[in-house]
Amino acid sequence: MAVDYEIFELGDVVLQKGATLPDAKLAYKTFGKLNADKSNAIVFCTYMASTHLDSQWVIQEGSALDPSKYFIIIPNCFGNGFSSSPSNTPAPYNKARFPLVTYYDNIRFQHRLVTEKFGITTLQLVTGWSMAAAQTFHWAALYPDMVKRICPTAGSAKTSLHNFVMLEGVKAALTADDAFKDGWYETQPYKGLRAMGRVYAGWGFSQEFYRKKEYLNIGYSSLEDFLVRFWEQWFNLRDANNMVAMMRTWQAGDISDNELYNGDFVKALNAIKARAIVMPGNCDLYFPPEDSEFEVANMPNAELRPFISNHGHFAGGSGLSQKDVKFLDDALKELLATPVP
Amino acid sequence: MAVDYEIFELGDVVLQKGATLPDAKLAYKTFGKLNADKSNAIVFCTYMASTHLDSQWVIQEGSALDPSKYFIIIPNCFGNGFSSSPSNTPAPYNKARFPLVTYYDNIRFQHRLVTEKFGITTLQLVTGWSMAAAQTFHWAALYPDMVKRICPTAGSAKTSLHNFVMLEGVKAALTADDAFKDGWYETQPYKGLRAMGRVYAGWGFSQEFYRKKEYLNIGYSSLEDFLVRFWEQWFNLRDANNMVAMMRTWQAGDISDNELYNGDFVKALNAIKARAIVMPGNCDLYFPPEDSEFEVANMPNAELRPFISNHGHFAGGSGLSQKDVKFLDDALKELLATPVP
Repeated sequence: MAVDYEIFELGDVVLQKGATLPDAKLAYKTFGKLNADKSNAIVFCTYMASTHLDSQWVIQEGSALDPSKYFIIIPNCFGNGFSSSPSNTPAPYNKARFPLVTYYDNIRFQHRLVTEKFGITTLQLVTGWSMAAAQTFHWAALYPDMVKRICPTAGSAKTSLHNFVMLEGVKAALTADDAFKDGWYETQPYKGLRAMGRVYAGWGFSQEFYRKKEYLNIGYSSLEDFLVRFWEQWFNLRDANNMVAMMRTWQAGDISDNELYNGDFVKALNAIKARAIVMPGNCDLYFPPEDSEFEVANMPNAELRPFISNHGHFAGGSGLSQKDVKFLDDALKELLATPVP
Repeated sequence: MAVDYEIFELGDVVLQKGATLPDAKLAYKTFGKLNADKSNAIVFCTYMASTHLDSQWVIQEGSALDPSKYFIIIPNCFGNGFSSSPSNTPAPYNKARFPLVTYYDNIRFQHRLVTEKFGITTLQLVTGWSMAAAQTFHWAALYPDMVKRICPTAGSAKTSLHNFVMLEGVKAALTADDAFKDGWYETQPYKGLRAMGRVYAGWGFSQEFYRKKEYLNIGYSSLEDFLVRFWEQWFNLRDANNMVAMMRTWQAGDISDNELYNGDFVKALNAIKARAIVMPGNCDLYFPPEDSEFEVANMPNAELRPFISNHGHFAGGSGLSQKDVKFLDDALKELLATPVP
């Protein structure tokens, strides 16, 4: 595969939880042109087990993330295989020794990219789905004066304990495969990666999605075909340690776990100045709308706008449902058209 | 452990899906005394990864299942290690070759026990939680003239596709452990059994249960303590092939998959004559109330009465919440006091 992205060299970075990662790299891709006063920038984050390649379809002329109007940066989340990850980091922090990189770390690095590389001081919008929604919340809480608008979809500002437990199950399935070898494999633990996909399958979509056999409407010929070609294959193509690294990031998610807020979650939510549309999926099994309601109730300038969709978690950004895609695009357009101080 | 139960010798049985299981055994335990006209019998079924030992606490004087009034039979579900199971069946149908035993098979065998062994022709009540709720529905659909009342809790008459997928994840985690050896292990695949427990953990209780840290209120000192001592240990003590056998039974559940109803699920529900109180958990993640609503709407004499409880699936019969226990006991008492034709 030809490399279609840029690398921002972060140098040696001290991570939030203590490790020093030498020669850390932030992979990113940009779309559109930064205007003269650098006022048209958007950050669009990446989700679990994905890269910018999986998200860039959202960026097209006529859509909210229109590259003829905006300069859109997709920074790749650490652990995703493009930015520094277990799979591409040399010893001593390679493979199983790749350290915990928090969302706080990710956003500090993305902030460096945005400011040092591009000289941008204002972001019109930060948005993203799932783990990218968590990054979106972190942007708004860590840089409240810089971020004008956010639209986090199907994600949370603080990983719930239920969500933590759900990920424990996914990790347990992956690492039950002896071929994982505590992360020191030479060949991918394919049985574990597939098991991980099969565990995820029950979580990703709603009960009604399966009740109505919606998988038949999105290109799969049977339930087992959906489990194999969609779920197993998604993870079958990934690096196992990278998956663990991203889940560790996810599990540690908390916008208040830093020196700004010292664990005071409500204080961190209060501090978000961005105009926000928070969009949970009404049937999301691991980011239930109740947690989004709490967030919105404690944010000064936020609206709750759930997806009404049996796609569950996948309503938030997968592109599998044209109805959900339009609902999101309309919200983003409205948000971008809303004047902010 | 001293054996505290009886064995009903079924002889060689031809199973619904074709296999002939030689010398099949139905393990059971009874409580109370059968009265002279054999009119006080109740069947109380067993759930996933459990035996009568896990359920018999429900049976006590003063409770609905009062052994001073009723003759209560707990038949052990096939695959649970007491009735015929992968772990106790000799070759050729031992271990990985243990055949699929459907709920239909289980209930036919239980019917033989009840009629041949005890000469009972009327059951005042059949009840049970989860997989036992499925057995309860099967009793009512297969022997509509014999079963006067049913109270299935947190279970379904037909396993939903989402529930099927959830079990695929649990099975995948268990069998990802190389020590499982496709079922031909000599030593239990403990890593897989523990992974199975960790996957189950996200499903068993509701998001709110974790949000409110309810595990601290039921005897666990931390989230990880709950994951290890409750969830991992539950399966750590079980036989892996038995777990797979029970999940196969569960996945194949459908009261209409037989010669009586030929796959017509609504017809099978319509045929249930028993007075029924159907009790889903309002926050059950794998037996959502919507499926129970459909069942009740198609049963001629049924009431929907959900548990309002953040214990999710475990509201239905675990005994962990005294509020849920009382809610169930009250429903059973009311049901048993209701005259039926």
